[in-house]
Amino acid sequence: MEPPATDLRKGSSSGDSKPEAAGAAVPRERPVSVAAVLPAGGSGERMGGGTPKQFCALLGRPLVSYTVRAIERISWISDIVVVVSSENVEIMKSIVKKYGHKRTTVVEGGITRHRSIFNGLKIFVKGNQLGSSLQKPEVVVIHDAVRPFVEEEILFKVVMAAKEHGAAGAIRPLVSTVIASSADGCLDHSLDRAKYRASEMPQAFLFDIIHQAYHQCSDYDLDYGTECLHLALKYSKTNAKLIEGTPDLWKVTYKRDMYAADCLIKDAISQQVCIITDIKENTVQVGFLLHETLKNHVKLVKGISRSLFKNDNHLQSILLGQCYNFICINDKLSDFQETHQLVDLLENTNASVLYSVVLISVHLNVLENASFSSEMQSLTKLAKEIKPKNILLYGLVIHYQKDNVKLQETMDSAAALMMALIRDRNPVFVGQLLVA
Amino acid sequence: MEPPATDLRKGSSSGDSKPEAAGAAVPRERPVSVAAVLPAGGSGERMGGGTPKQFCALLGRPLVSYTVRAIERISWISDIVVVVSSENVEIMKSIVKKYGHKRTTVVEGGITRHRSIFNGLKIFVKGNQLGSSLQKPEVVVIHDAVRPFVEEEILFKVVMAAKEHGAAGAIRPLVSTVIASSADGCLDHSLDRAKYRASEMPQAFLFDIIHQAYHQCSDYDLDYGTECLHLALKYSKTNAKLIEGTPDLWKVTYKRDMYAADCLIKDAISQQVCIITDIKENTVQVGFLLHETLKNHVKLVKGISRSLFKNDNHLQSILLGQCYNFICINDKLSDFQETHQLVDLLENTNASVLYSVVLISVHLNVLENASFSSEMQSLTKLAKEIKPKNILLYGLVIHYQKDNVKLQETMDSAAALMMALIRDRNPVFVGQLLVA
Repeated sequence: MEPPATDLRKGSSSGDSKPEAAGAAVPRERPVSVAAVLPAGGSGERMGGGTPKQFCALLGRPLVSYTVRAIERISWISDIVVVVSSENVEIMKSIVKKYGHKRTTVVEGGITRHRSIFNGLKIFVKGNQLGSSLQKPEVVVIHDAVRPFVEEEILFKVVMAAKEHGAAGAIRPLVSTVIASSADGCLDHSLDRAKYRASEMPQAFLFDIIHQAYHQCSDYDLDYGTECLHLALKYSKTNAKLIEGTPDLWKVTYKRDMYAADCLIKDAISQQVCIITDIKENTVQVGFLLHETLKNHVKLVKGISRSLFKNDNHLQSILLGQCYNFICINDKLSDFQETHQLVDLLENTNASVLYSVVLISVHLNVLENASFSSEMQSLTKLAKEIKPKNILLYGLVIHYQKDNVKLQETMDSAAALMMALIRDRNPVFVGQLLVA
Repeated sequence: MEPPATDLRKGSSSGDSKPEAAGAAVPRERPVSVAAVLPAGGSGERMGGGTPKQFCALLGRPLVSYTVRAIERISWISDIVVVVSSENVEIMKSIVKKYGHKRTTVVEGGITRHRSIFNGLKIFVKGNQLGSSLQKPEVVVIHDAVRPFVEEEILFKVVMAAKEHGAAGAIRPLVSTVIASSADGCLDHSLDRAKYRASEMPQAFLFDIIHQAYHQCSDYDLDYGTECLHLALKYSKTNAKLIEGTPDLWKVTYKRDMYAADCLIKDAISQQVCIITDIKENTVQVGFLLHETLKNHVKLVKGISRSLFKNDNHLQSILLGQCYNFICINDKLSDFQETHQLVDLLENTNASVLYSVVLISVHLNVLENASFSSEMQSLTKLAKEIKPKNILLYGLVIHYQKDNVKLQETMDSAAALMMALIRDRNPVFVGQLLVA
């Protein structure tokens, strides 16, 4: 989900490395300074709810934070300006602080989209109310706060095309036929779908071109226009280069889009699982079988022994690899302190700031245990304690059996339960003890 | 989700009732015979997967079946023709049979969308290979198989407009600006978003108008066109009436749309819960408290005593009301045969043909019970047995407490767990025993 960002400026200025944005047409480029403006002032009336959609939560985090993060992880974008309506300035600042967004400035917008973008551009020239100004970039990216799935590749392509052509924007094929209606509400004519495209985001501009266009455009443009490419054409005589975008550039518009975004984010953070075992024979065997079984469900399964796990650096490297799912295999429910230690480590590393961390505590053979009830209560108690820290703890009992066929059946069932817990990340189920 | 359909023909011909399609502009209409053609021949290449999207499963049932059902429940649509590519004719026939779709005929399509729709229309005139033909309707609705959320109201409006104007189609505002590109891939001009609309489905036509248009149109139209309204205009000189549609007319196009559709369907079938209690004091109290608590989560909570529930007619009426979620409150885990009886009833009424039925078996005070493990095993066993019948059985333990404040806390927790089980309908968790 978050590939290592390429440092375009550094790489290029030192002159000895290629920007590795996958599929980029131009492997070597001269340095270019890039900033991004994210208009986030929409009222969200199409969502049918009170909260504007950019502030609606996905897995507990506001949508706009996902978009900021998608831009922030790209090291060659030096500044990110988020433009919000006046009543949301403090909310946005608290979001930037809470999720630790870097290089991000919050700016108050205007009453329309174009006025907001213009305000965002001005901060690179005039500064904001406090007098601080950001360094004027060569190229500015404009991207909607409600398009969280933008990838580095398309940003790179659009930036490079803007550098060459003065303006560039992502486009997509039309999903529906576009028609014009007559005054009486009947069909006048339909457009040939093949000749038209939907204009999407991101777009990018040589800073001076778009800044000049906004300076020269009319109040009518500022109040009723929506298309930046149109302004660049009309006022700066710049025909934007159009870049075919990927389907993931879609805009979160309706409630159904929030559902879709929620599922896509869950997909993305369910692709890696880390299994932690100790050295006892049963747990090693179960760990190995689980490892093999989970491979059928996710892209990457990492195995690690508990002793190694106590090393903070090792955990750090796993977390840097965007792994948010941990399975801790214990021999008995009473081995539960080990899970406690893991929780401490996760807390210390701020692993769960951006995404919830799923922690599945696996226990072999406990149901016959007389103290089952009290031990389950300690699992539930810990789960409740750490839930506010965005760590979701679930328990799973595996009946360990010597019979290999039966054991594999149990592993299949355990893997399915684990993947459901990891995929759903449902906070309601924390502290429950499931049985495979 | 499925409001009682209005019988437009019956209501109108008897002359003494109003068609109650909510919000319909015209309260009384003369009888009109209506049929529907659903093109379902698409290859689904935009999904990025092998299975065409209309055959992809949502909650275990193919998407096309949801669309057929949305049309089928409208009693004034007499025939439904589903047009599929030759390799999918048998698959579609088996879907019609499995889900009990009525008044539905499967027809083999052509190699393009227009050729498929034309084949669908021909069956009303020439019949199919077997010689059978359907009665030619006055108005024919054309609707995409991948738009499952169509409501009676918009169908009614489009049909009535087609009756008056000869053709009609649903439209929606454009989400993105539409642009034209020049030969070198740069922006030529952008369209004023306010002047254009997206043409969506459903559309409706006087049968003879659209049939004639298809007869007269060129091979080029049949091979490269996509817009039925355009054909009616070009070949039958009919300017279609454009009807503002609702957001739920969207087309399932990408993988993210399948996710969104999945969530919307789950939403729709999570709005009603039926609680079944017996007459023992504890279960009556818990049932009452749950009833009150669940009211905060769903639109409708029905309470029913177990003795009444044994009456098949009573259950039938609940199921006809589109209730797919049942909570059975038992005093002890050993009361479990009662749950068995309920399962038998659900099976006998075919309750779970279209949607999975969620059955939560609630047990008071079992964890201290020495035979917990064995009783849990019987829950798991039954859950496994009935899962293939699309009945999803989950167990929930509630600690019954005399303290009212604590009991209410437990109820809040129980209601949250129940709603998560009902909302997710996850088959992986069947047979699990959760604890509130």
